[in-house]
Amino acid sequence: MSSQNKEKDPFAAELYFSRLRQPEKERILAMSPREFRSIVRTGEWSSVTKDVCHGYVMTNLAIVPEDIAFEFLQFCNQNPRPLPVLEVTAPGRPYPKILAKDADLRTDLPRYRVFKDGEVIDEPTDIMNYWRDDLVCFLFGCSLTFCHAFREANVPYRRYGEWLTNIACVPTEHLRGHIIASVRGFYSIEDAVRAIQISSRFTRAHGGPLHFGRASDMHEIGIDNFLETFCKSDPISPIRLPDTTPPKPDEIIMTWGAGPTPQQVARESKLPFMITHLAGHMFITDLRVEEIAAL
Amino acid sequence: MSSQNKEKDPFAAELYFSRLRQPEKERILAMSPREFRSIVRTGEWSSVTKDVCHGYVMTNLAIVPEDIAFEFLQFCNQNPRPLPVLEVTAPGRPYPKILAKDADLRTDLPRYRVFKDGEVIDEPTDIMNYWRDDLVCFLFGCSLTFCHAFREANVPYRRYGEWLTNIACVPTEHLRGHIIASVRGFYSIEDAVRAIQISSRFTRAHGGPLHFGRASDMHEIGIDNFLETFCKSDPISPIRLPDTTPPKPDEIIMTWGAGPTPQQVARESKLPFMITHLAGHMFITDLRVEEIAAL
Repeated sequence: MSSQNKEKDPFAAELYFSRLRQPEKERILAMSPREFRSIVRTGEWSSVTKDVCHGYVMTNLAIVPEDIAFEFLQFCNQNPRPLPVLEVTAPGRPYPKILAKDADLRTDLPRYRVFKDGEVIDEPTDIMNYWRDDLVCFLFGCSLTFCHAFREANVPYRRYGEWLTNIACVPTEHLRGHIIASVRGFYSIEDAVRAIQISSRFTRAHGGPLHFGRASDMHEIGIDNFLETFCKSDPISPIRLPDTTPPKPDEIIMTWGAGPTPQQVARESKLPFMITHLAGHMFITDLRVEEIAAL
Repeated sequence: MSSQNKEKDPFAAELYFSRLRQPEKERILAMSPREFRSIVRTGEWSSVTKDVCHGYVMTNLAIVPEDIAFEFLQFCNQNPRPLPVLEVTAPGRPYPKILAKDADLRTDLPRYRVFKDGEVIDEPTDIMNYWRDDLVCFLFGCSLTFCHAFREANVPYRRYGEWLTNIACVPTEHLRGHIIASVRGFYSIEDAVRAIQISSRFTRAHGGPLHFGRASDMHEIGIDNFLETFCKSDPISPIRLPDTTPPKPDEIIMTWGAGPTPQQVARESKLPFMITHLAGHMFITDLRVEEIAAL
């Protein structure tokens, strides 16, 4: 499967955070988005972002040339579950206007992925060398937003990583791709219903789930090897999975559209050029999670 | 105010429906969207659509040339309350793929409005003569969707038409415009809260309100002459207002982003070319109202 890129050291990023001393962890959790972006910009932080800036909205990133930008935006709009657009910049402008002040999308994410003709050619910590005057940046809501809301609502869950599904996005003339989904487990029907209610409030961060069932039902969305491989490593993203025991038979397994979907679109559409963030290395906005809730 | 276009006969459209015999009214209310579109296409129906195809989603329309389509979609995405995009067609293709089957947006709305350099130059019943291979069609959710939900939930309200506000859309490089809002009155705080809850479920049909208050508060959003003029005629749209008695002092007056906003954008941005529907003369989709609810 072309999406199962082997990372050189898939666990390095999360280990980096786990090795930090406790006061340092707390400092990063409590950091303002502006301050955090500044330590990313200077290169002091090039790791995953899941434990930074507690309670702020993080976003996924995709950058395409102006000549495909309209069609890509149209593609996103007709596939809002995997591709919930929060902001689009003007061509040649790497500066968001709505989500953050004084940010530069060329330097303010810890790590990027550069695609040429649908293949990864580089994973730099900034994209100054790749920037062009015809590039348009797309920022997407991310599932860590509703995961924050799960925790606030005391709904426990387990993370089972991100997976390529057999659910096809509604295509446009030049763009197609299957949805990459994030997978989580819930201990009871009650928790699962609550998770559907909570995530549905975040229509701009993937919204409600695409599928739910038992672990043995995952083949329904094209994940045939879920029980065999879930605990080894995340096939899509370099984020280490903390849960290494298999899901229980009665656990409710739920999947949502996820941020690496644009990468799958780049691959399947063989896009001449696209830049994304490296999964897990997201852009931190100035907005609080509840600011983007639909309800 | 440039938006207060005088219609030749603002009440004609609604009078047409009110003059229909009861069995004819019931036939049109119960008609399928496909059947209704066919009587629009043949020219048999060129009137307002508010009482047709009970329970189906109606949409507002804006058509712009490809060279401004990306920026316009970006403008819509950053102004989702007045401009909630439901579908965008590919350049040169007047056929929606998601909202309706076998529809043609050049003929299937009862009446259109053609803008040149920000001014209305025509209000034809089809746009075959204006169609070009570089045109892109935008379909927007419409407040009649949540009004249907108000009625289903037994929340009574009064219609006070559509008004130009002083609330500016977030601009893009070439596009700007103030929001045109639909205004409704509610008899109690309880009904108003219920209306906020219900409309908020329809994020793809304007979502929650932009403002609420008493009739005397309307100056806060730039509607200075509300009590004096509300009952005379609708300044924006040709839809007849059925409620001709003034709002009571304790009535809760609530405003939502509304479908004529693209027309205001055409005017203020002096767009070289845009086609919209004539207010009230909407496109009827194949979707049921609850199909586009966020929750």
